[in-house]
Amino acid sequence: MISFFRSTLSFLWIRNILCPFLLFGTFPMHYLFAQTSIVSLQAYDSLAGKILTTALGQNQAINVLQELCAIGPRLSGSPQADRAVEWALEKMRALGFQNVHTEPVEIPHWVRGLKEEGFYYIDGSKKKNRIHITALGGSIRTSKEGLKAEIVEVQSWEELAALGDSVKGKIVFLNRPMDRSLISSGRAYGRAVDQRSKGAIEAANCGAIGVLVRSMTTRLDDMPHTGQMNYADSVARIPAASISTNDAEVLSRFIHEGKKISVSLKLSCDTLPAVESANVMGEIVGSEKPDEIVLIGAHLDSWDKGQGAHDDGAGCIHAIESLRLIKELGLRPKRTIRAVLFMNEENGLQGGLNYASRECRGERHIVAIESDAGGFSPRGFSISDSSAFAKLAKYASVFSSIGADNFRIGGSGSDIHPLVETGVPGVGLIVDGQKYFDYHHSDNDTIDKVHERELALGAAVIAIISFIIAQEGL
Amino acid sequence: MISFFRSTLSFLWIRNILCPFLLFGTFPMHYLFAQTSIVSLQAYDSLAGKILTTALGQNQAINVLQELCAIGPRLSGSPQADRAVEWALEKMRALGFQNVHTEPVEIPHWVRGLKEEGFYYIDGSKKKNRIHITALGGSIRTSKEGLKAEIVEVQSWEELAALGDSVKGKIVFLNRPMDRSLISSGRAYGRAVDQRSKGAIEAANCGAIGVLVRSMTTRLDDMPHTGQMNYADSVARIPAASISTNDAEVLSRFIHEGKKISVSLKLSCDTLPAVESANVMGEIVGSEKPDEIVLIGAHLDSWDKGQGAHDDGAGCIHAIESLRLIKELGLRPKRTIRAVLFMNEENGLQGGLNYASRECRGERHIVAIESDAGGFSPRGFSISDSSAFAKLAKYASVFSSIGADNFRIGGSGSDIHPLVETGVPGVGLIVDGQKYFDYHHSDNDTIDKVHERELALGAAVIAIISFIIAQEGL
Repeated sequence: MISFFRSTLSFLWIRNILCPFLLFGTFPMHYLFAQTSIVSLQAYDSLAGKILTTALGQNQAINVLQELCAIGPRLSGSPQADRAVEWALEKMRALGFQNVHTEPVEIPHWVRGLKEEGFYYIDGSKKKNRIHITALGGSIRTSKEGLKAEIVEVQSWEELAALGDSVKGKIVFLNRPMDRSLISSGRAYGRAVDQRSKGAIEAANCGAIGVLVRSMTTRLDDMPHTGQMNYADSVARIPAASISTNDAEVLSRFIHEGKKISVSLKLSCDTLPAVESANVMGEIVGSEKPDEIVLIGAHLDSWDKGQGAHDDGAGCIHAIESLRLIKELGLRPKRTIRAVLFMNEENGLQGGLNYASRECRGERHIVAIESDAGGFSPRGFSISDSSAFAKLAKYASVFSSIGADNFRIGGSGSDIHPLVETGVPGVGLIVDGQKYFDYHHSDNDTIDKVHERELALGAAVIAIISFIIAQEGL
Repeated sequence: MISFFRSTLSFLWIRNILCPFLLFGTFPMHYLFAQTSIVSLQAYDSLAGKILTTALGQNQAINVLQELCAIGPRLSGSPQADRAVEWALEKMRALGFQNVHTEPVEIPHWVRGLKEEGFYYIDGSKKKNRIHITALGGSIRTSKEGLKAEIVEVQSWEELAALGDSVKGKIVFLNRPMDRSLISSGRAYGRAVDQRSKGAIEAANCGAIGVLVRSMTTRLDDMPHTGQMNYADSVARIPAASISTNDAEVLSRFIHEGKKISVSLKLSCDTLPAVESANVMGEIVGSEKPDEIVLIGAHLDSWDKGQGAHDDGAGCIHAIESLRLIKELGLRPKRTIRAVLFMNEENGLQGGLNYASRECRGERHIVAIESDAGGFSPRGFSISDSSAFAKLAKYASVFSSIGADNFRIGGSGSDIHPLVETGVPGVGLIVDGQKYFDYHHSDNDTIDKVHERELALGAAVIAIISFIIAQEGL
């Protein structure tokens, strides 16, 4: 299992650190108004209008998301993830997609278990004060009796290093908040998530016996947010949990008042043997160039919190609904448009890695589009390379009626990243992400946080861009 | 009281029909990249960054809205509206604004009373089935025993006219839904709200004894939405209520199945004698041209539903917070920036009318800006005349980092409309309005529906545009 995880570590770093920065970053907008046939622009304007009207008028997207969310959260290896695979297969068949099938993926199987408990104690008192914690994905469990130690608060790796041996036998409390003053919440996430990703490694390196990470959100509330953490072979594995932002503020205040704070943790999580799961795909076969593929991707798995409604249930529904809209309007794409729901983005990326390494079968992917930023109002697209950007930006005006004409160069998506690494242009849906980290990886990520019209608009703009690429190439 | 209302009828029509269409319309974006000093654009880019960072980082807007919402809904003439006037006065003084004062406004005083009850009966059965209704603002009450009659469903005035005398003695059920297929929810509102505005007049003209109007929302739920209705002197006044969209669907289904549906209504609303209330204002006096005014307006009153959080608590906080941000950063505007919280936008517009007709006092308003579309993510500005648009659009790029660079020609705001009618350029904040009519004029309009970061961004962009105009003129 160790090497299994290590092989994907570089991808995890890209996913956790680089992609959010690129996806949510605030690059200046560069519109390229290169020469484009006015006739084709007008035709696509008209087509966009029809797709948008149909998406909003039929209002199907939210119903499909309701079905998916009813299954529950879909952590890799869970019975719910298995049911989601079956559901997606049936849904794509029922909607009349072509070549609907699954492709097997071996995935890690981490489970949370039933016990998660955290308390703090002030100045050696035995009085238990509850804190809201949750194990980070991939963490080892504590012993049955739990772990109890003084906590040491730091906000940076430099601070941690400066503490030296004094950290030994303690729990490191990583409490650098997401910077709420940044316009891009994704950028704020990108600048804080290293605490979650490598906190256990760095803390263990200093002799700590556990790590407690401030939840990745700008919101102050009682909700702990989970997410992937990593171990390194060279250092001890220590239990790692996140703590709600409200609790993090309380502990920090006590520490700054000079009080000694101890924390006890009980975690029952575990990594079980790898299991087999699947990517699910279906398509509309191209009428002229069926072997040229326009891929629309999202990830079917989620963390075991809430319902994975925004992350990434919304993306799955964007993929399914965009194909449905194209079929509903009787459009015949020249190239094949394929929806792929990837398994295991959250803790392994095995679905995306598998897809990128599958035999080519005479196919050529001309673009990979991903929606993995939530079901909010669409604002535009982030495009992985300058050549594809130049070609697509010519069509930005088609998206101006809904304010989704922000086309820029940047990251695309985690699941499609392995494919993009092979040279396929990647396109990521940009949405209005101010609320995203209120919900992300927490029990807050439920369907009532998704707005039916915003979700439908996301599906519509993906239908429009994928159809334009299917007709015009890239 | 009749002439009192009639004098404002033309403004109410503009507010209900024209403004939402203009404000939320989906005109193609026209950016004018006329020659502008690169130095001043760069300076404003830098300034915008500071204002945005401060607004998000200090995160004050949501706390101020919390204070206002804690007062409760602020219907004109209510004790809560009086308390809101006092609160605004104190808040502006506490924040160190200059020339903080109120100006008296005589306003209508409609009250809902305690009794609101609706039932339907199928095919003459005496079995009561509850429906969710609420009196429309301005409606007369029913008798104590209530009103009971068969309902006649229509979706258009033509259908109503065609029914002729058969409507006599019945309740007209106006059930034309807001068109959910339109991208702009405001445009959908604009195309449906005539049912609420003139439904009682048209129905009474045909001899109906009451009118029931489908709530103005694309959402299907059990929540009735209120809003202003009107009477005409030439026809009888009949009770008017809105019905939730779910109930409207149920009644319509029965009618289409050929069933006779009667409805009973009890309403205890009443119009009391006019009372005195006030507009509240405060300012930062200009350092060079103190008599030239950049007005930032919003309305302090709301309907007596929810907390008036989006409509228009958010706008009030935009006005207050934008001045606070300018002060906080030590900026010295050349011209005076004045926040005006108008009273009685919802059912009379007396605050706006009063302000426009006050003596000029040697002042000249160079622009009137209004925020009355909710506390959602800002997207740009709708500008009332082409000359002001041409001058302001040069600065659109300053707003591109947050995607609020959609500058277009269109309506501005209801409160400032009387001022705009006198020749002052009007500017309305455009926001992402997909959710707005879920909340508008209903018990859903509460502070938990307002997102702290989206609210703060709205205040920041108003601070930026008002400061630019204060420096550059218009």
